[in-house]
Amino acid sequence: MSAGDDARFMALALSLGARGLGRVWPNPAVGCVIVQAGRIVGRGWTAPGGRPHAEPQALAQAGEAGRGATAYVSLEPCSHHGITPPCAEALAAAGVARVVTALEDPDPRVAGRGHAMLRAAGIEVTTGVLAESAWRAHRGFLLNRTKGRPAVTLKLASSFDGRIATATGESRWITGPEARHIVHAMRARHDAVMVGGGTARADDPDLTVRGMGATHQPVRVVCSRRLDLPRDGRLAVTARAVPVWLCHGPDADPGRRAAWNGLGARTIEVAVGPGGQLDPGSILQALGAAGLTRVFCEGGGSLAASLLSAGLVDELVGFTAGLALGAEGRPALGVLGLDRLAEAPRFRLIETGAVGNDVLHRWERA
Amino acid sequence: MSAGDDARFMALALSLGARGLGRVWPNPAVGCVIVQAGRIVGRGWTAPGGRPHAEPQALAQAGEAGRGATAYVSLEPCSHHGITPPCAEALAAAGVARVVTALEDPDPRVAGRGHAMLRAAGIEVTTGVLAESAWRAHRGFLLNRTKGRPAVTLKLASSFDGRIATATGESRWITGPEARHIVHAMRARHDAVMVGGGTARADDPDLTVRGMGATHQPVRVVCSRRLDLPRDGRLAVTARAVPVWLCHGPDADPGRRAAWNGLGARTIEVAVGPGGQLDPGSILQALGAAGLTRVFCEGGGSLAASLLSAGLVDELVGFTAGLALGAEGRPALGVLGLDRLAEAPRFRLIETGAVGNDVLHRWERA
Repeated sequence: MSAGDDARFMALALSLGARGLGRVWPNPAVGCVIVQAGRIVGRGWTAPGGRPHAEPQALAQAGEAGRGATAYVSLEPCSHHGITPPCAEALAAAGVARVVTALEDPDPRVAGRGHAMLRAAGIEVTTGVLAESAWRAHRGFLLNRTKGRPAVTLKLASSFDGRIATATGESRWITGPEARHIVHAMRARHDAVMVGGGTARADDPDLTVRGMGATHQPVRVVCSRRLDLPRDGRLAVTARAVPVWLCHGPDADPGRRAAWNGLGARTIEVAVGPGGQLDPGSILQALGAAGLTRVFCEGGGSLAASLLSAGLVDELVGFTAGLALGAEGRPALGVLGLDRLAEAPRFRLIETGAVGNDVLHRWERA
Repeated sequence: MSAGDDARFMALALSLGARGLGRVWPNPAVGCVIVQAGRIVGRGWTAPGGRPHAEPQALAQAGEAGRGATAYVSLEPCSHHGITPPCAEALAAAGVARVVTALEDPDPRVAGRGHAMLRAAGIEVTTGVLAESAWRAHRGFLLNRTKGRPAVTLKLASSFDGRIATATGESRWITGPEARHIVHAMRARHDAVMVGGGTARADDPDLTVRGMGATHQPVRVVCSRRLDLPRDGRLAVTARAVPVWLCHGPDADPGRRAAWNGLGARTIEVAVGPGGQLDPGSILQALGAAGLTRVFCEGGGSLAASLLSAGLVDELVGFTAGLALGAEGRPALGVLGLDRLAEAPRFRLIETGAVGNDVLHRWERA
């Protein structure tokens, strides 16, 4: 098998794994391809809910053809007995001759033991194939395991002068239906959608995935220091159907906490930063501890600014619409408190293109 | 000749014509292709300075092969005796059998007379081929002839949150070198580059075309009601080498006018609007009367906002950089005074793509 074949099959494993994004937390969204004599005999990806893992599904599909085959796995196979037996064991038991992986799993229960278990079983192991793509694909899981926080995608949809509403607060619609549809697809690939309390109050959003035939909904997270959120809005009314998690400060009124718990919401206490806002690092640590690996933040300007200032935005998604709202319009981002241009948070362009009459641009932390 | 052939040769004529953009005002940048039996025997475009016109150059190249040929011209050939004899006469004299044009020239000295002159000479005339593209290509000339003003391209280069400088005014550099290079190419394709007085004071720009091997420089226009511009800055120092035109209000100090005239600048008095700013319509009428057909406005925010508010921006060019400056940064656009979202100036996306690490997006008035 050439290095080109390895990369090709790993790319397939990665794209299969991506099918699980948003639905497998706290587990990684892994993909697996079994190749026998150049022919794909099994394909698998982490199932919704996180189990079964990708490897046993691909092996089951391969059956006897798995014997002597090469398995491409987008992350090191697990080595620990959890609810399921270790995937490294399953690969060995199936008689796979070679395993190609993209990355070592930093989970302390794995951390190289999966690869070692395979080698001990006499299997040839190649690692690091498409490692950069795999790092990107598994960023949420990897950040959760290594830094205790989920990956954060920040979405900003604005007029071409960076405004999200008129001075009077009118904001529907700035971007077109095609862009809004893509936002729903992006929500579906994240574990949670997050907004600040101001946005929840101003827009009464429901933050669900619509129009995608979705059977799965991300958790809805609202960050509100004082929990001063309307308890008759869409989030409140639907909190039993689709999870609502409210991050609040230690000084939030206990009566409000109880009322929200009574509506079915989960309340999560986080620290307040020196500026009096909820500390973004503390919010993300709490969400990471709760198992989230990928959070899609849709504003508002204050929450977005506090995440950017703290260096906690991993991916930025912009939608730029073909209209101008002027300096009196509401800014997409709050105050960053920069003293110098050199301090500005910088991002590397990944992708840009037209979506309907809007411009989509995706950036990654530089 | 099929309609497909007609469109193909007209597209070539249009792209030849585009070579003259920025260098032929007050004339249109016309392209001409002479086709004999399916073979291109002559090509021409309006020469720098506006003469010779495209047709006689293409006919000279074709020579005897022009007899019985088809001439594709991106605008109706002229019919009046000016400094040069009419192109319609030249086409007839060359024995061309058929003339295909994209548009009628609205110049009252032509206005269908070119087409009529050709038909009277027994030439078959087809008009309206690629009319929409030709309208776009000749927009500056057409607007000048029909509305008395040049076409306006507004360029906004900003952070992804729509800011052009930090709170302290630091602005170098927000976009990358590739984007800045493209801006120079865009300047070269316009008759003039225009900024507001605030930008001239803050940035001390020279507004020239650099790094393009350019032999031609656009006129530099600064709009400053009171002419309170530094007379030791780059514009002042270079005003004899590259034209500087200053649009000012009736109340500008006569001493300042005289001083600027002494430096080699042209001063142009325009009306002041109800808000106390120079009236954008009056600025453009004055520039149109002076012969300009294409103006490239590079801000600042107040001038950009006044042009947008008045519906005088024909094309919008955005560069979005991968950094955030926050709500305290200086906005790319000033106040528009919108009451409702429905009143926002809207644009249709023409093109988007990556330019280095920045996003370029081009829009046309919707």
